Amino acid sequence: MPIDRPLPAFNDLTGAIRALAMDAVQKANSGHPGMPMGMAEIAEVVWRRHLRHNPTNPKWADRDRFILSNGHGSMLIYALLHLTGYDVSIEDLKSFRQFHSRTPGHPEVGYTPGVETTTGPLGQGITNAVGFALAEKLLAAEFNRPGHAVVDHYTYTFLGDGCLMEGVSHEACSLAGTLGLGKLIAYYDDNGISIDGHVEGWFTDDTKKRFEAYGWQVIGPIDGHDAAAIDAATVSAKAETSKPTLIICKTIIGMGSPNKADSHDSHGAPLGAAEIEATRKVIGWDHPAFEIPADVYAQWSAKEAGATRETEWNTRFAAYKAAFPELAAEFVRRMAGELPADWSAKRDAALAKIVEKGETIATRKASQNAIEALAPALPELLGGSADLAGSNLTLWSGSKSVTRDAGGNYINYGVREFGMTAIANGLALHGGFIPYTATFLVFSDYARNAIRMAALMKQRQIMVYTHDSIGLGEDGPTHQPVEHVASLRIIPNLDVWRPCDTVETAAGWINALERADGPTVLALSRQNLPFVARSAQQIADIRRGGYVLSDAEGAKAVIMATGSEVALALTAQKQLAEAGIPVRVVSMPSTNQFDKQDAAYKAAVLPVNLPKVAVEAGVSAHWYRYVGSNGAVIGMDSFGESAPAGELFKHFGFTPDYVKKAVEALL
Amino acid sequence: MPIDRPLPAFNDLTGAIRALAMDAVQKANSGHPGMPMGMAEIAEVVWRRHLRHNPTNPKWADRDRFILSNGHGSMLIYALLHLTGYDVSIEDLKSFRQFHSRTPGHPEVGYTPGVETTTGPLGQGITNAVGFALAEKLLAAEFNRPGHAVVDHYTYTFLGDGCLMEGVSHEACSLAGTLGLGKLIAYYDDNGISIDGHVEGWFTDDTKKRFEAYGWQVIGPIDGHDAAAIDAATVSAKAETSKPTLIICKTIIGMGSPNKADSHDSHGAPLGAAEIEATRKVIGWDHPAFEIPADVYAQWSAKEAGATRETEWNTRFAAYKAAFPELAAEFVRRMAGELPADWSAKRDAALAKIVEKGETIATRKASQNAIEALAPALPELLGGSADLAGSNLTLWSGSKSVTRDAGGNYINYGVREFGMTAIANGLALHGGFIPYTATFLVFSDYARNAIRMAALMKQRQIMVYTHDSIGLGEDGPTHQPVEHVASLRIIPNLDVWRPCDTVETAAGWINALERADGPTVLALSRQNLPFVARSAQQIADIRRGGYVLSDAEGAKAVIMATGSEVALALTAQKQLAEAGIPVRVVSMPSTNQFDKQDAAYKAAVLPVNLPKVAVEAGVSAHWYRYVGSNGAVIGMDSFGESAPAGELFKHFGFTPDYVKKAVEALL
Repeated sequence: MPIDRPLPAFNDLTGAIRALAMDAVQKANSGHPGMPMGMAEIAEVVWRRHLRHNPTNPKWADRDRFILSNGHGSMLIYALLHLTGYDVSIEDLKSFRQFHSRTPGHPEVGYTPGVETTTGPLGQGITNAVGFALAEKLLAAEFNRPGHAVVDHYTYTFLGDGCLMEGVSHEACSLAGTLGLGKLIAYYDDNGISIDGHVEGWFTDDTKKRFEAYGWQVIGPIDGHDAAAIDAATVSAKAETSKPTLIICKTIIGMGSPNKADSHDSHGAPLGAAEIEATRKVIGWDHPAFEIPADVYAQWSAKEAGATRETEWNTRFAAYKAAFPELAAEFVRRMAGELPADWSAKRDAALAKIVEKGETIATRKASQNAIEALAPALPELLGGSADLAGSNLTLWSGSKSVTRDAGGNYINYGVREFGMTAIANGLALHGGFIPYTATFLVFSDYARNAIRMAALMKQRQIMVYTHDSIGLGEDGPTHQPVEHVASLRIIPNLDVWRPCDTVETAAGWINALERADGPTVLALSRQNLPFVARSAQQIADIRRGGYVLSDAEGAKAVIMATGSEVALALTAQKQLAEAGIPVRVVSMPSTNQFDKQDAAYKAAVLPVNLPKVAVEAGVSAHWYRYVGSNGAVIGMDSFGESAPAGELFKHFGFTPDYVKKAVEALL
Repeated sequence: MPIDRPLPAFNDLTGAIRALAMDAVQKANSGHPGMPMGMAEIAEVVWRRHLRHNPTNPKWADRDRFILSNGHGSMLIYALLHLTGYDVSIEDLKSFRQFHSRTPGHPEVGYTPGVETTTGPLGQGITNAVGFALAEKLLAAEFNRPGHAVVDHYTYTFLGDGCLMEGVSHEACSLAGTLGLGKLIAYYDDNGISIDGHVEGWFTDDTKKRFEAYGWQVIGPIDGHDAAAIDAATVSAKAETSKPTLIICKTIIGMGSPNKADSHDSHGAPLGAAEIEATRKVIGWDHPAFEIPADVYAQWSAKEAGATRETEWNTRFAAYKAAFPELAAEFVRRMAGELPADWSAKRDAALAKIVEKGETIATRKASQNAIEALAPALPELLGGSADLAGSNLTLWSGSKSVTRDAGGNYINYGVREFGMTAIANGLALHGGFIPYTATFLVFSDYARNAIRMAALMKQRQIMVYTHDSIGLGEDGPTHQPVEHVASLRIIPNLDVWRPCDTVETAAGWINALERADGPTVLALSRQNLPFVARSAQQIADIRRGGYVLSDAEGAKAVIMATGSEVALALTAQKQLAEAGIPVRVVSMPSTNQFDKQDAAYKAAVLPVNLPKVAVEAGVSAHWYRYVGSNGAVIGMDSFGESAPAGELFKHFGFTPDYVKKAVEALL
């Protein structure tokens, strides 16, 4: 073994992890054996001696959360779930990385009981974990009462060099330190190896010092193969409740493999039959592949202990319920992700008031008004912005900033778009909250993979992205989104709304709040947009994503538009009418919703035989499917410029006259 | 003044900066006065006492570089450029933030002489600066000879709290420490204020400790309004050549404003006429707006000193040229961004060899072969990958890793996609290099805003993005790009190639290398793709982005495809021919290039009257403009799954049979 250290005390508990990881990767002929083999001792200590969970009920509200931030080592968590008694069978392990198995290549929430979040994109697991720990802290502050700690659990996470190199780990861990998330415990698999090899050529951080700079408790470096040291460190971590803890564990990747340990050769490929055989000898595991002796299962099983723990909690929760029946009912509702019973009534009243007011304001302001109207009914709404509260207009009169020492319903995320979005994914996944986050639309780029992860994980996060076009003016092309609305629309399972006035903005918010199976982006204007009067049917149709906003007898063409360009379309419609050309105006606040409508509805809104013009101050590519071969798109396929907004709209061709000419050219 | 500290020694030098910043923002009624007012003393010291530049020749090869990472404070750099004698007139300052002015809202390279990079998106300026400093170090290692230090300049950068909160600052500064970029000097405007207010609620890092953890020299905190302290710190920074230096400067945002200093009120809005008047009194500046006394100009002017410096360097370069004529000529060529004289011949020979070989390999492997064939002719090619060298296949036989102590032509960027891409922007902007960078296509998300910045800044960076579809198989949906190719195609000025075999891959590389006005993405397969034989005309037409790859007499339909789906289209074509249906197959490796062709060419490739089917293993939205109202798109608008690639292609409908049926359905 090419390792300059004593071997660990190999035993059957860690042997089972190492064997399952090697064998499943070998069978799949694909996967990452090195990490599970390197973290086997850490996993044994955390999962057998500390993690409070109940394999029979992976949804127990007060379970400790476990997040594998170095998600490529997925066989580690699958082995742990299997061994401790979750509904992950040995057959499931044999189907590792196969189609529709419970054991996909990376851990995916919803596929596997016990997997709390989907990981693999590095740095986001630890960031989700910060969200989980923050959710616990906020729920505890809100629901616990003296003598009734119904919310009281830890968040454990494993992470590797890759997570620590990624910038998002800085954003998340910095904020976790500021907020004093004392029940977050992270284990750094400090094996000195990344895919390109030994990391000293590209990663020489003093990670202890770095995390101390964030205000974390840092323990170690300890020997990550020494169970006693890991246990002692974990005890110390749990004892420090005012700071998150990082335990730096010096490990050997692929530990146990005589020829591939301590090398990236064990990172991302099967060890091969011969090396697996040799490893079996080293680790003292002489059982055939996928065979675990009954006594090993018995030592690993957490079913009995878990049932006891949950029963004990149930008893405590019953006492809490007796003392605080309303709080208890609210806690149950919140954790179930259900909207309040009176939601529909309050929603309808709020919307009616917005319709009645008929204000001409920026849609970012309309969004703030919608929050103000809806939030009192929704204590689960947990806001925030990446240091743009006053620009995104995400604060409402009931907002209370979360601090290190007190709960609240608003998070000052700092200038951390990616961290914010992935933390909010953790908040949503934990349960108990509907997070909304905010930045300028153009900086959705910074957060993009976390937006995608929200969509992939089907999590309800509402993204308030303001300053949605060249309409923001002088800040110039670095701040002017051009391709962003289109690029967000094509993320699967992400709803995107670009509303044209107060009513569509409220409708977008309502849709986002009621949508339990995915995230929603609201793209909002900096500048004022005129209120448009609508019939009750039109208001109801907003939810369909596209609808006839203003029709004309014998319409000869259709102009469709979104957001700030709807007003433009309506003005062009008037000018065309004066020129004797009746046209229909269709508002399309959400093409994603419109795409889901049946063919008859779509054809009724966008008749096949009418020529169509689409107008949107963004890239044109998205619109060809709606205007067809003979239509026209008024968009912009270049970057913007720094100038007052009015001049820019004129320069880039967003004028009623330009739209009118485009319609005339089609006729 | 609501500040608990003595006022600085206000003088006319800093007064000019503060006045110009206040007045220009006021006139534009838009902008950020607080930062320039808070950094005036630092700016005076750096620009008057240290920066080696020549305002008359902003392109002098060995000038010190200055980068304003907190780019919203753009009036600071405009004031400095004006005062020191660049071609930025007082009229230009009066046009701050106006259409097509030299003084856009944020600094934009190419708009303003003396602006080295476009900043505003926080964290990327400091990251570009790391690239600039790395370029200097590598060019010095390559070109300097004993007694001939023709490359010998510093990179200075200003940055704020926002930059330090952004994750990309972690990625960049960590790598800068590892690489020991001793000539990088950063000034942290530690004013304790971000847009949401005083930062202590969301940003409590011990930044000194954090940067020491990265291996930087950290000086301070010093008083950022004490010129002597700033000067002394700068001298120490220049003296330490083995580590980058961060100088932490405690400053007051909006310093000089009696009522808005030390408050976010001075951050992003005009101070207002009354407050400006009051500030004039505090700072002792009694000149009207936009009027600078001649003696102040005289003290600021760097024209004479700059001309002397450049003349001195020219003399040294002449001596170098006399001693090393070939090196000197190569340096001039490299800095001019021109390809070598023998480029065309070597390129044609390389391409011919690749055509002749006719290999069936993955396009990622084809890309490596293209690098291997072309790189020997291009010493400016500076490769790298975000810790995926062996997967992206970005190493070639001549690759030499850059280390702390030695130059090279390959950067192990670590797991830092965003940092890598923005560092490479700095490398390209500095001059002397054509950087190529690499990661999995799905993780282009992490780097997205830096990709956009490369496009906005018209910089030649080649992005090698492999594992370009569900074809990567078992790693599952977190790693399978679905929307990425489409979302990259819509970034203005970004060329995207998704080649189908070795020849198209080489053509994509050649196009990218020869393109001097913007970046290029190469989306490449993990899996093998069959070689396709072509005529000379077809090979020439690849550059048009779309061309007839396989025609059929009396074609009744067109199948267009990209990358791995081209082979599928060709198989479907055969099956359709057997069924008596002749169809044409069009390969569309770059829709961006195809869009630039004239209407006649486009119509010749995609005849208006023929029904069309597009096939691409990605979101469908992009293709409707090419297939028209009566066409069909075979794409995938959902996330992928974890399974072997073959099963996935079958499951998601990417089979010849499926394509055949889609064509038949149209006829």
